[in-house]
Amino acid sequence: MLTVIKIGGNIVDNPDALDSFLADFSKIEGSKILVHGGGKVATKVSKALGIEAQMIDGRRVTDAETVKVVTMVYAGLVNKTIVSKLQALDCNALGLSGADANVIRSHKRIVKDIDYGFVGDVDEVNASFLTTVLEQGVQPVMAPITHDKEGLLLNTNADTIASTVAVAMSQVMETQLIYCFELEGVMRDINDKDSVISQITPSEYKELKEEGVIVAGMIPKMDNCFDAISQGVSKVRIAHASDLKAILSEGVEKGTTLQA
Amino acid sequence: MLTVIKIGGNIVDNPDALDSFLADFSKIEGSKILVHGGGKVATKVSKALGIEAQMIDGRRVTDAETVKVVTMVYAGLVNKTIVSKLQALDCNALGLSGADANVIRSHKRIVKDIDYGFVGDVDEVNASFLTTVLEQGVQPVMAPITHDKEGLLLNTNADTIASTVAVAMSQVMETQLIYCFELEGVMRDINDKDSVISQITPSEYKELKEEGVIVAGMIPKMDNCFDAISQGVSKVRIAHASDLKAILSEGVEKGTTLQA
Repeated sequence: MLTVIKIGGNIVDNPDALDSFLADFSKIEGSKILVHGGGKVATKVSKALGIEAQMIDGRRVTDAETVKVVTMVYAGLVNKTIVSKLQALDCNALGLSGADANVIRSHKRIVKDIDYGFVGDVDEVNASFLTTVLEQGVQPVMAPITHDKEGLLLNTNADTIASTVAVAMSQVMETQLIYCFELEGVMRDINDKDSVISQITPSEYKELKEEGVIVAGMIPKMDNCFDAISQGVSKVRIAHASDLKAILSEGVEKGTTLQA
Repeated sequence: MLTVIKIGGNIVDNPDALDSFLADFSKIEGSKILVHGGGKVATKVSKALGIEAQMIDGRRVTDAETVKVVTMVYAGLVNKTIVSKLQALDCNALGLSGADANVIRSHKRIVKDIDYGFVGDVDEVNASFLTTVLEQGVQPVMAPITHDKEGLLLNTNADTIASTVAVAMSQVMETQLIYCFELEGVMRDINDKDSVISQITPSEYKELKEEGVIVAGMIPKMDNCFDAISQGVSKVRIAHASDLKAILSEGVEKGTTLQA
């Protein structure tokens, strides 16, 4: 069983949470792939370099200077920090951007209403290279930067990378996907930890959107989840990073499981 | 035959020289490994972040903040820019820091007279992983950042990385090493392009140092070269990057060849 795990910028930005997560990640049995988000360092570096952060609908617009900064921070500092910490935990990690070994080829997002700039939409995952690496006992750690194989580096949504990688790998081996985030799962009431919805089917998802329980940034995340489950990933879950150990090592059912 | 090539910061900093070099590199027959230096972007980013660059004897002193910057710039921006450009040239490049797949383990330089900070002295190269990668038709591109396998990332001399990688790989396959730099080779008179010394033996090297022909920064570079040739690398050469094509594709003898 291959486990693909995605962590967001909130874990990347918090050294204690990151260390705790990586200790749990390093102990997962079998093959595993980590996909990480960016975090706030990119904004700090951009500001210092005098680059104005531009946001449209909560999404960063990536101009030519910003894609350099996110390449530095995500594929450089964040990725190598995670890799070196995992190495210290005897987890043989290999950091990858999508350009490395052509692992994720994407295209620059086509401009419709909004020009997001140097943002990539994923076309193809090199499952063959990832399989070879996993067979060596090496665990890929993927940064949210891809390329178009024509020389452009592209800022790419980490949730999408996680689901497309999981789908591609599910053609080769049994694959589960876990999105770790800052909540206990999908909740009916964001202020009530006991309101986690343990399982959601596509028709329930539709209802939850209509009821306004699932809104805004959760919608593309859930769409990624259902894409994965409908395309061969055997289990997709959304859970708090601190519940990873209980879920994977102790078989405790926590978080929200998406169902086909 | 494996060809290990090192390029310095002067090529990394010059987009036209870099593109031209990468076009030549992509056409080299057989397996190849590229080791790159850092370039000046790290200094620019450090300045913008308010980190003072500290130099002792022409070597950057790497404090805790500076090692973050060089990790960003060398293992992030520079490495991924090179990898994506090579991918566009149909060269299946894989960017690596020393932490990735534990490719280069080093230790933080022991403080004698000078504390260089987070600078790594190389202990071990993972030739087995590099061999597996090369067998997949994938070409490693190595940034001058290593790790101590205890969680520290360390700024590491790219010349040393190139020679230790070449030595380690020479135990597995026939390996040649080429240092590309900004001159035509080792020259008797730096102002006379026709004064390139085509071959140097260890005893001639000793004489050239005594005569003051080889001085300063060239001495550690030459020491790296002779280390490599005495430890199994079949050919070591110092040449101008623009002569690479003539040397490798056309068999023209250019630059300086070091002899055992």
